Amino acid sequence: MKPISKLDKSPWETLSSKKIYENHWYALRQDQVRTHTGKQITYTYMEHPGAVAVVPVTADQKIVLIRSYRYTVNDWCWEIPMGGRENKDLETDARKELFEEIGGVTSNLEYIHYFYANNGVSDIRCDVFLARDVNVGVNQPEESELIEIEVFPQNEGFRMAYAGEITDGMSALSLFLCEKFL
Amino acid sequence: MKPISKLDKSPWETLSSKKIYENHWYALRQDQVRTHTGKQITYTYMEHPGAVAVVPVTADQKIVLIRSYRYTVNDWCWEIPMGGRENKDLETDARKELFEEIGGVTSNLEYIHYFYANNGVSDIRCDVFLARDVNVGVNQPEESELIEIEVFPQNEGFRMAYAGEITDGMSALSLFLCEKFL
Repeated sequence: MKPISKLDKSPWETLSSKKIYENHWYALRQDQVRTHTGKQITYTYMEHPGAVAVVPVTADQKIVLIRSYRYTVNDWCWEIPMGGRENKDLETDARKELFEEIGGVTSNLEYIHYFYANNGVSDIRCDVFLARDVNVGVNQPEESELIEIEVFPQNEGFRMAYAGEITDGMSALSLFLCEKFL
Repeated sequence: MKPISKLDKSPWETLSSKKIYENHWYALRQDQVRTHTGKQITYTYMEHPGAVAVVPVTADQKIVLIRSYRYTVNDWCWEIPMGGRENKDLETDARKELFEEIGGVTSNLEYIHYFYANNGVSDIRCDVFLARDVNVGVNQPEESELIEIEVFPQNEGFRMAYAGEITDGMSALSLFLCEKFL
């Protein structure tokens, strides 16, 4: 059994790896792995290119939220502009989502933090931006997106997040991570 | 094309549904769906029984965190006790995770909120509890869990969350949702 410490960056060893499913947005990867105990296990997880999330704030300190229908949970969720990684640099992806989902443009985009959205079953990482001085326009949703834009005073947006009304976790967490910069 | 409003609870219609992969923890479900535009699409997503998360706080106002190795992201993450749904009632699952991951017991468990962890590609819902007056003991990790317990003053736990140091998003969000109750 290998000794473990916080300095051991990769205590598990990948013995083999294959894709068992793939679509346009993600794949299912199945690895044979030797764990820290020496045991060999099969680990199957969703392989995802990652996501960018953008918290949009207007020049007059309002937060722009999206009411989005999500088929997976058959529910409407309050969200912020967010989407899968497509380009090499994060900022291009962030500007693309901002424009597609709220017709938003800004010259004031700041990188804040990243988080893993669901690290037990997926490698998906979400990089969070704060967009200030956003001008909201007409959105360009993808065919599978059903969304409505609504603008809230900043304190009402945070009240909704703390009250659990922003049920999309990735959006709620992105708001919290940006709060101290506003 | 169907008219859409916020009152339309299920604007998309499921035409057929099948499992294309399944393991002990989740399945991959592939549905044929008619969207709000009338178009027929294929929607493939991770079907998950849901998760419970528990924010553990001791009688002397300390927060108990877990340093956990996650194979999916090949990284160590700060987390709170959390796991997949197994029992009919949420509270039983919450107490089970608290005991397994930090040897924790409490007579003071409060339901806080729920969120969807990754609603574009999964139906996973996470229900969040706040456990007060927790006595920390010896943990009983599952074979695939590699975890170390560490106890922090409450304000340091929240500082870490706001600073983006708690990179497991579901744990960071659970902390934020509990903050106003502490």
